[in-house]
Amino acid sequence: MASKSFNAVSLIRKKRDNEQLSRDEINYLIDQYTKDELPDYQMSAFLMAAYLNDLNKDEAAALTHVMLHSGRVLDLSDISGTKVDKHSTGGVGDKLSLILAPIVASYDVPVPMISGRGLGHTGGTLDKMESIPGFKVDMSLERYRQILGKCKMVMAGQTEDIAPADKRLYALRDVTATVESIPLIAGSIMSKKLAEGIDALVLDVKFGSGAFMKTQEEAKELAQTLVAIGEDFGKETIAYLTNMEQPLGYKIGNWLEVEEAMASLQGNGSDDVMEVTHMLSGTMIALGGKAESIQEGVSMSKEAVNNGQAFEKWLDLTEEQGGDTEVLRNPELYDHANHRFTVEASTDGYLREIDAYKIGIASLELGAGRKTKEDTIDPAAGIELKQKRGDKVKKGETLAVGFTNNKELIETAIDVLDEAFSIKPDACEEKPMVTHRVDKKGIHKM
Amino acid sequence: MASKSFNAVSLIRKKRDNEQLSRDEINYLIDQYTKDELPDYQMSAFLMAAYLNDLNKDEAAALTHVMLHSGRVLDLSDISGTKVDKHSTGGVGDKLSLILAPIVASYDVPVPMISGRGLGHTGGTLDKMESIPGFKVDMSLERYRQILGKCKMVMAGQTEDIAPADKRLYALRDVTATVESIPLIAGSIMSKKLAEGIDALVLDVKFGSGAFMKTQEEAKELAQTLVAIGEDFGKETIAYLTNMEQPLGYKIGNWLEVEEAMASLQGNGSDDVMEVTHMLSGTMIALGGKAESIQEGVSMSKEAVNNGQAFEKWLDLTEEQGGDTEVLRNPELYDHANHRFTVEASTDGYLREIDAYKIGIASLELGAGRKTKEDTIDPAAGIELKQKRGDKVKKGETLAVGFTNNKELIETAIDVLDEAFSIKPDACEEKPMVTHRVDKKGIHKM
Repeated sequence: MASKSFNAVSLIRKKRDNEQLSRDEINYLIDQYTKDELPDYQMSAFLMAAYLNDLNKDEAAALTHVMLHSGRVLDLSDISGTKVDKHSTGGVGDKLSLILAPIVASYDVPVPMISGRGLGHTGGTLDKMESIPGFKVDMSLERYRQILGKCKMVMAGQTEDIAPADKRLYALRDVTATVESIPLIAGSIMSKKLAEGIDALVLDVKFGSGAFMKTQEEAKELAQTLVAIGEDFGKETIAYLTNMEQPLGYKIGNWLEVEEAMASLQGNGSDDVMEVTHMLSGTMIALGGKAESIQEGVSMSKEAVNNGQAFEKWLDLTEEQGGDTEVLRNPELYDHANHRFTVEASTDGYLREIDAYKIGIASLELGAGRKTKEDTIDPAAGIELKQKRGDKVKKGETLAVGFTNNKELIETAIDVLDEAFSIKPDACEEKPMVTHRVDKKGIHKM
Repeated sequence: MASKSFNAVSLIRKKRDNEQLSRDEINYLIDQYTKDELPDYQMSAFLMAAYLNDLNKDEAAALTHVMLHSGRVLDLSDISGTKVDKHSTGGVGDKLSLILAPIVASYDVPVPMISGRGLGHTGGTLDKMESIPGFKVDMSLERYRQILGKCKMVMAGQTEDIAPADKRLYALRDVTATVESIPLIAGSIMSKKLAEGIDALVLDVKFGSGAFMKTQEEAKELAQTLVAIGEDFGKETIAYLTNMEQPLGYKIGNWLEVEEAMASLQGNGSDDVMEVTHMLSGTMIALGGKAESIQEGVSMSKEAVNNGQAFEKWLDLTEEQGGDTEVLRNPELYDHANHRFTVEASTDGYLREIDAYKIGIASLELGAGRKTKEDTIDPAAGIELKQKRGDKVKKGETLAVGFTNNKELIETAIDVLDEAFSIKPDACEEKPMVTHRVDKKGIHKM
């Protein structure tokens, strides 16, 4: 894309002085940076100015636009139906993609899902898929279209040619303390999602100790920015704010989460997992034009679990992507972890807190995640909670079971787990899982 | 200097989050940067965070310390007397160094003056010195000490080994829109001045259209930061805020300013030039221990002009540094510019404004300054004002005369000059030249 020419120092100064940059100006900066014509040191000064003085929704949309068009943008117009995807800002035990994608696809709403790998305390959908023996997430574009056309869903990994400008910017942000900026985060998310060629998007913006956004306020701001960018691109976008104080569901770790997702698809999901899943998948069904309202979509979502069509859809997809379906039907066939240990309640009382961040870190320590991009993953490692927040427990009762193939990792994990649980004499109120919906009309309390 | 080790991203984050950095932390960042162990892109992110969240006086002092010690620091303790220098933040027509240094030195207060070259609309003392035929500003350290010992003053150029960290930082600030930060400016000034091995320092902090600081408020803040840093280093430091709305004196341009300085040393200085000069040189004489008070210093300063000892001192120094003293005694011997032109009053009235910035730019356009570091200078080029602010003028009367050796430059200069003068029907009040003194006790209105 040809871009107008500007003076880079003037543009940095403009953002430094808290003025708004035009779309052409944002375009120029990122475009020049991607072409190696703007040096890192000017981009990092701009990023710090953008971090401290913020980018408004127009600037964030312009940033998304230029990052999106820095790489390949899929055109899925030859595949019939309204393509809808979901993106989550990442949480601990978040296996929702594996449940909702087949629900939605089972109503012929195409779900072209491109996911990333996990880093740090949150898992990545791709790593979960790969814990299924034989499951392939790397494929040609042709094959991707073929699977999507046939199964109405596909689960693939990001390729290098998706939003390369975002990759470069993210790497620079990582070493210049400019990661945690809402418009920069929003631009990064949306440029990658829009490259999939979707028509509509549902966003799960998590808040709490296990999430990237620690407070509900930050999550609201991010959700509003994401929705504004989506709408700017003419894609209907709905975001939900969801609670990530304790892990989602009972299992954390790649294969463990697949197990739980399969159980959920067969009607045995936990309340928290199913509440969020149905809200997201119901919305996707509505955005895909197969339900009149989100409410109707939610009912259809429940029905797809009850009648088994969603589980069948998942098995079809797994077969298509080379995975072993037998182990999904009979998880006891899986090559489970060699070592397991338990964490017990230190006193009688009510389980008042299960710190999602600490559970995520403990799971990472057991081998379920990556501390650096180069680490390899133990697919069977992780944690199974035996109790959830609010449960009444007795001293010595098992709170959680840990799994790993490397015995040496257990001690560190236990140290972290010991601090993750808090037991108090009094019961506590239940916290709602989905607190707000954000759409083009505004923010709505649920 | 050995420095403690820190994580660079954490330090950038700390400043980003508006926390104060310790001296060790500032030291680490600059030290690593100077050693090429911290990349430009991290330093520029830090500089932008420092620009927007500011550095406090402690941080500015730490910055000065590490920049100062990145290079050579002169030790002049073997030269008797309290070494005092002056630094000006730069103005248009500011030839004060050439007048006050010989005044102060004539009382045996050593003035070890190291100056820079001009860039943009303000001139540099070094360029003015070099317009004197034969005058040498580059010399060995040995020769520098010899001249200072003998003449009690020396006028030398900065060498590469003075505060090299400041040079690198300045170059990076220039291309990342982080120049105009008061603590960064203060650190840059003080690291270079303290490297001279001075015992005390007088600062002329200018404000107004022709100055780097456009408002009195900014100038106050800079003055306070400079004084705080000086005191932190145990050097008595006094700053004055002085007006730079119109050019200082009547002549702007290298040789033209030497001419005016020589006239001033012989008792023919303009009121504005002499008011500021005597205040600064009087303060330097007091700081040098040769007067009981600034007031007494000012009287002594006037006396040194009246009795000719300051002019004699200048002639001695010029001879010592290889310059032609004959042309200083008889300026008509100088090889003046080949081309001259006049600017006339467009109407009757009172000259209400002579925009110092525009006069500076016009002089630059005529060849008296540098637009880029590589430009060469026409020593005879510049502007002579025939009227000053407040003067009553008649239509067609000459307001200024322009000088240049390159006829082609005249047109552009005239375009700028035409906008520099403003004539109104009513008279205006005189503005005081020196408005405040800042010392360790605080800020004092004059």
